[in-house]
Amino acid sequence: MTFKRIVIIVAGGSGTRMGAGIPKQFLPLLSKPILFHTIQAFLDLPLISEIILVLPASQISVWLELCEKNQFTAKHTIVIGGDTRFQSVSNGLAKVIDSTTLVAIHDGVRPLVSKEVIEKCFQEAEKYGNAIPAVKPLETVRFCEKTGTIPIDREKVLLIQTPQVFKSSIIKQSYQTPWLSSFTDDASVVEHAGYQIHIVEGNRENIKITTPQDLLFAEVLLKKNNPF
Amino acid sequence: MTFKRIVIIVAGGSGTRMGAGIPKQFLPLLSKPILFHTIQAFLDLPLISEIILVLPASQISVWLELCEKNQFTAKHTIVIGGDTRFQSVSNGLAKVIDSTTLVAIHDGVRPLVSKEVIEKCFQEAEKYGNAIPAVKPLETVRFCEKTGTIPIDREKVLLIQTPQVFKSSIIKQSYQTPWLSSFTDDASVVEHAGYQIHIVEGNRENIKITTPQDLLFAEVLLKKNNPF
Repeated sequence: MTFKRIVIIVAGGSGTRMGAGIPKQFLPLLSKPILFHTIQAFLDLPLISEIILVLPASQISVWLELCEKNQFTAKHTIVIGGDTRFQSVSNGLAKVIDSTTLVAIHDGVRPLVSKEVIEKCFQEAEKYGNAIPAVKPLETVRFCEKTGTIPIDREKVLLIQTPQVFKSSIIKQSYQTPWLSSFTDDASVVEHAGYQIHIVEGNRENIKITTPQDLLFAEVLLKKNNPF
Repeated sequence: MTFKRIVIIVAGGSGTRMGAGIPKQFLPLLSKPILFHTIQAFLDLPLISEIILVLPASQISVWLELCEKNQFTAKHTIVIGGDTRFQSVSNGLAKVIDSTTLVAIHDGVRPLVSKEVIEKCFQEAEKYGNAIPAVKPLETVRFCEKTGTIPIDREKVLLIQTPQVFKSSIIKQSYQTPWLSSFTDDASVVEHAGYQIHIVEGNRENIKITTPQDLLFAEVLLKKNNPF
């Protein structure tokens, strides 16, 4: 059985923390919208049959203008997002019909994911049903309890990233549930449905761009990797 | 009672993860050793009466040459480090005599600490006996257990930074103990001696420079803050 590979990129941010007037996924990174770079990270990989971009309804015309202005011709399907990330992913998943498909769900503002990590997540999800990337913190870690904070073993702490990859049958079935506040990512939805989550080592640079400093960091890193 | 303020900067790294032949604290950051920037972060603050730099014996001559070559004249006391970070801090603490002193212990490869965070740590340590900076992770967090991984509330997770500031009497007394593997930072030593740890909000950019990417990030951030 050969699995097709579909990517759902979720871009719902409004960018208030960036101090900018435009949604953060549209902010320029090396003079192109962040989202261009994020999509590009997947385009160069083999076997990807479709890229689905979930955008708030209000941002679709701006996105299409940006694509035209920048001659961004990479083929992708646009889906209208919902009020929450959970609803946006649901809307994206509704476009996935084939049951022998692997679905990667990725944050629109994580342009620095490495090809190795994407490939590894797809491969392991085919084997285990799901695979999500994580890195260990470099810092000492403490945990807040009612009476104060206690140290916890940082070797056992995992900071979770995306893309989170699932067999389409598993993720679609898992999303047939009302939203819960414990759903902090897609893996937590799948876990709630009874599946055990499989972890893959992520790449440390794969940050979620949230602050102007993150944007600077992404810029310097992309410049280094693509000097021309 | 007025507390004097002493800073102990611990620089014991060998830099193997940086892929460079020289200890990472000496690597150039905007063409000056990282350690210059780290010391500088404290120099501009008021009330600091002494800066103690703990260095491995084998690195002292290189350091002195770097200072001369770069005309780095900031006054500081050099102390020879030990085989472990614990021993190095002990050696630094041996130089702190006065009991009405606040001691800040800081990693040599954290040049991006903000003045506001340093000042806050000193102020709160004067009040609570100790104060350490921390930030919350931006990512979903999971924890490894024997049977797999479980999600934990990221709002309760703290990534610990330095400077960790203590009343001298407390930190000196706490260090009168044999080393334990649970001592991952100075706060854990003080906690082992029976004190409750007080947390202060850190600045996110205050990373421990560990990889070439971290160095790039530090460079772009320092450049932005000091454009001339």
